[in-house]
Amino acid sequence: MSRIAYVNGSFVPYNEAYISMNDRGYHFADGVYEVFSYNWKGVFVDAIPHFDRLRHSLEALDIAFPLSNKSLLIVMHELMRRNRCREGYLYLQITRGVAPRDHVVLDPLHPVLTLFVRPHVFKETPPLLKVFTTPDIRWKRNDIKSISLLGAIMGKYQSARQGGDEAWLYNDQGFITEGSATNAWIVNNQGIIQTHPVTPAILNGIVRQRLLKIAETLSLPVEEKAFTIEEALKAQEAFLTSSTKGVHPIISIDGHPVASGMMGPITDKLQRAYWHFQHTLTKDYDE
Amino acid sequence: MSRIAYVNGSFVPYNEAYISMNDRGYHFADGVYEVFSYNWKGVFVDAIPHFDRLRHSLEALDIAFPLSNKSLLIVMHELMRRNRCREGYLYLQITRGVAPRDHVVLDPLHPVLTLFVRPHVFKETPPLLKVFTTPDIRWKRNDIKSISLLGAIMGKYQSARQGGDEAWLYNDQGFITEGSATNAWIVNNQGIIQTHPVTPAILNGIVRQRLLKIAETLSLPVEEKAFTIEEALKAQEAFLTSSTKGVHPIISIDGHPVASGMMGPITDKLQRAYWHFQHTLTKDYDE
Repeated sequence: MSRIAYVNGSFVPYNEAYISMNDRGYHFADGVYEVFSYNWKGVFVDAIPHFDRLRHSLEALDIAFPLSNKSLLIVMHELMRRNRCREGYLYLQITRGVAPRDHVVLDPLHPVLTLFVRPHVFKETPPLLKVFTTPDIRWKRNDIKSISLLGAIMGKYQSARQGGDEAWLYNDQGFITEGSATNAWIVNNQGIIQTHPVTPAILNGIVRQRLLKIAETLSLPVEEKAFTIEEALKAQEAFLTSSTKGVHPIISIDGHPVASGMMGPITDKLQRAYWHFQHTLTKDYDE
Repeated sequence: MSRIAYVNGSFVPYNEAYISMNDRGYHFADGVYEVFSYNWKGVFVDAIPHFDRLRHSLEALDIAFPLSNKSLLIVMHELMRRNRCREGYLYLQITRGVAPRDHVVLDPLHPVLTLFVRPHVFKETPPLLKVFTTPDIRWKRNDIKSISLLGAIMGKYQSARQGGDEAWLYNDQGFITEGSATNAWIVNNQGIIQTHPVTPAILNGIVRQRLLKIAETLSLPVEEKAFTIEEALKAQEAFLTSSTKGVHPIISIDGHPVASGMMGPITDKLQRAYWHFQHTLTKDYDE
């Protein structure tokens, strides 16, 4: 478990991390977040793409955040060190700031930065997951990694109550956009890896981006094209990606097994390649 | 300004009201709220419909909340008393509870209840407002009064930066759904009061509900039917409603004056009638 959290400039015991009731994150979900994984060497995986996406989210909300990537990394490593936790993930949240509740506050506020880490061993052999599909009731700007997550949460609860590990969200046309907190992939019945293209309907996952590069290196065919629930049920393989999970095979959708109901060979290949990449990184980024 | 807030069982100084970083309201916007107005006699306006809607929101999220309406009212009146504030509004928020961050927590949690009051004199003569239209990018369950408000906030910021008092949100078909924090109304060019029907695209405002009854009493024709931006620009009158505002006339939309650019006679009539209703209530509800 986490021992020490970071709240706006201070390292505090995790269980005593408090924020103001008037934090706009609490009243309006007016904030953004990122989740970084870091390996057993204490290296943050794909730190730069995470920071780039963080800036994209902040800019979309017009939140000016004064810390540079370098300064953030120093704080992140210090938090890791204080928690004596070498492998795991780090949660970073930035809200617009604290002000008496009013929908719009035009005066600039001091953004509130909170961080915590959680130990997690990224295993070489992944668990086999079940997903259930639910309507995608979220907003239209899922490219912003905001804390306004209730629509996603409701989907995941609906899946969890049926014994699912994740929810796959489908839009009005029956296409899967993504999971409630992961990107959704299949290996379609032509053997092509398929995932939703980058639009505001999805969050362009950092593992998603990395996996597209890995697939290219492995000469595996990929198509960034939405697929329906029916296509997913007829697929050769299915899997999901996220920073906390890496690549996890999906063996059933809505109670129906995907192909043989085991991890497929392409998922296996991608999962190993991603795990190897993550496991052997020696630097947060190249200078 | 508020002096005393209520945080989960305790009355605390407003500026020292803190909640846990691990409150699910902070990480997932996993909570709901209500805003009650109360008049100079300290009477909560339409308390029962507010409580009914609160239960609807909680049930939609499967949050079990143990306090009865009666117990809540006792706490609300005590907070009003401690703030020595007789006319104003009360903000009430309930989140699912506190737990280490995980999208789904199936174990029951203790919901977190926070309240504050703010003095506000509901004036007999309302201000004249300007609105700007922005795309409705929110989720599909606006019937739930959740704190997952970022989509609404972004619209209101967009309007405020142009000098607007409120944003009117339009859907993909060009119909106004509602304001970012208010219901939207026009008196159309046939003299009929028109507002969006009750669907998950809008929050069924408590003042909206009350005003429909008032219009009936006054024998004013009403149609619950969505209108377009174009219809709003050709309307005889426009106005908005909310618990913190009551009925406020709108004199311009996207910089174009609505009719004469003054408060129209039907808005005037409705505004006076609502103000009178609010002002003269003597009981929170009839036993």
